[in-house]
Amino acid sequence: MSRFWSDLVAALTPYTPGEQPRVEQLVKLNTNENPYPPSPAVLAAIRADTGDGLRLYPDPEAGALKTAIAQRYALDAAQVFVGNGSDEVLAHTFCALLKHARPILFPDVTYSFYPTYCGLYGVDYRPVPLDAALRIDPEDYAGENGGVIFPNPNAPTGRLLPLEAVRRMLDLNPDSVVVVDEAYIDFGGESAAALVPEYPNLLVIQTLSKSRSLAGLRVGFALGQAPLIEGLERVKNSFNSYPLGRLAIAGAVAAMADEAYFERTRQAVIAGRERLTTGLESLGFEVLPSAANFVFARHPAHRGESLAAGLRAQRVLVRHFRQPRIEDYLRITVGTDAQCERLLEVLEALCA
Amino acid sequence: MSRFWSDLVAALTPYTPGEQPRVEQLVKLNTNENPYPPSPAVLAAIRADTGDGLRLYPDPEAGALKTAIAQRYALDAAQVFVGNGSDEVLAHTFCALLKHARPILFPDVTYSFYPTYCGLYGVDYRPVPLDAALRIDPEDYAGENGGVIFPNPNAPTGRLLPLEAVRRMLDLNPDSVVVVDEAYIDFGGESAAALVPEYPNLLVIQTLSKSRSLAGLRVGFALGQAPLIEGLERVKNSFNSYPLGRLAIAGAVAAMADEAYFERTRQAVIAGRERLTTGLESLGFEVLPSAANFVFARHPAHRGESLAAGLRAQRVLVRHFRQPRIEDYLRITVGTDAQCERLLEVLEALCA
Repeated sequence: MSRFWSDLVAALTPYTPGEQPRVEQLVKLNTNENPYPPSPAVLAAIRADTGDGLRLYPDPEAGALKTAIAQRYALDAAQVFVGNGSDEVLAHTFCALLKHARPILFPDVTYSFYPTYCGLYGVDYRPVPLDAALRIDPEDYAGENGGVIFPNPNAPTGRLLPLEAVRRMLDLNPDSVVVVDEAYIDFGGESAAALVPEYPNLLVIQTLSKSRSLAGLRVGFALGQAPLIEGLERVKNSFNSYPLGRLAIAGAVAAMADEAYFERTRQAVIAGRERLTTGLESLGFEVLPSAANFVFARHPAHRGESLAAGLRAQRVLVRHFRQPRIEDYLRITVGTDAQCERLLEVLEALCA
Repeated sequence: MSRFWSDLVAALTPYTPGEQPRVEQLVKLNTNENPYPPSPAVLAAIRADTGDGLRLYPDPEAGALKTAIAQRYALDAAQVFVGNGSDEVLAHTFCALLKHARPILFPDVTYSFYPTYCGLYGVDYRPVPLDAALRIDPEDYAGENGGVIFPNPNAPTGRLLPLEAVRRMLDLNPDSVVVVDEAYIDFGGESAAALVPEYPNLLVIQTLSKSRSLAGLRVGFALGQAPLIEGLERVKNSFNSYPLGRLAIAGAVAAMADEAYFERTRQAVIAGRERLTTGLESLGFEVLPSAANFVFARHPAHRGESLAAGLRAQRVLVRHFRQPRIEDYLRITVGTDAQCERLLEVLEALCA
């Protein structure tokens, strides 16, 4: 605390990201990174751009990347916003499109950065409880509100809302922006990007951190009709003219172009998830149906906190949330087969 | 405009960065980039990190970079904040340390992003006129205020405030944060970093875009006593946990380590500025004394706007501001000798 702080900064409750340990030899299944490396084409594009040109500012509009993303989703470049990771895109979204007189709505169990953004931008919010099976029910989001935001699949549950239910959410909220945070959509869901031309109130947010294996590069984007994108651009241009450096733009353009590699690694993660789920179930875990690159699981006879601590003692990191309703669950990233086998081995011993 | 925008976004006046043209063969002296490439050690460090590790998140604290910067300035890592370019660092500073009940003070002729940040965060401000010679006088900043911010050397004038005058500014404002925005300090000034241990109200902001030739990488930082830095960290962790990607961290660490290259290119820019100044003066221009990698100059017989347009027609870009007091000035980046010669050649014809 300092007398020089603004009242706002003193009142903030910052987000705590999953641990990024500096020690080696850990089985790191705590921050939903992709176990497969980025496409070789991405690494080649970055290396090709690592030269004298770095002395120059990047294109502040990142036009090449917007075009590449637009092509991938059959949209127009004016329907694409890009940022320094989807967290930055989310932050600008709270400021530009979710700050209204009425409270916004999001699930009570969800990405825990949302209330933090509300604190930063003075956005009022009302958490909407998931149902008993930890599912989102669009009917719970009817009625006047300042906006709606939810991850799809939801985090940390991994549960997917089918596209028809997303459509229902949009139809129920014609006067609010509905933000679908699709960080994990490529691992089992159908993107709401296809609904953008139809719904002026839809904003879809994605990231290259997960399904494109580029958490270390920091690129996220939003898709929506041009007036929503323009609102985001106004905030971006009041914050930082050049959020994406030259290497991030070059790597991201190459990532969007390599559809074959994307498809192969995506399917490998999905297959790994199914094996991990089977393995956990054979140890007696209850595993929520997941459409993400992680699973959310609990054991009827063991506390989540003690399992997480036991795994950690054996150098296996998973994520555990001290939060009502989900405190006995572990969120486990789908790693390589070897990593998942090691996890199951340690869990078997802990549960014995 | 859209009915989905927040009132805030509708009221913003976004910043307009200098043009980043996509055509080649331009003499680009409009955005104060360094004419010399980044250090070869920087490029090697980035290439070495361009591998499978990009699938993993970066260190959210960028600890290695904070340590490298702290060593360079004989400070502690807890006295260093890092961000995605100094524009992001400035944005967080307005939110964390300059948003108070009283208006903040900054020069009437200065970096034009400051009023934009005020709009974004609802910060009241009062511009303080430069003196007749376009200089900052610390005595004009006495009296109660919510904070003080100024670039040193100032942009776009290039004029330097000596360290003793910065100290006077700090002594005059013991109850306000004084932010010294040192984007250009390495080209001729003495950094206020040395005053950090002495003044709890001092925040120094720098960038790797100019004197480290890394505008394309996006890295900036702030130096201050730990409580000020902690305020910035709280905002950062409420906005984006991972503002710097792995390649930005690797490149910036290498840049801070290569002091010899930094010194050589810095001196080359300073020598180029002296030649450019002499050349402009020989054409009849009045050139303000500059401590930056640009000069601010006007011709008694020619309008700034028409000179900028004439240069542009000959594929030479400089920056011109349509703003009272400085509308007849051109802001000209110190380029390579060849670029400066081409500029002078075109100006000679235009002034003939």
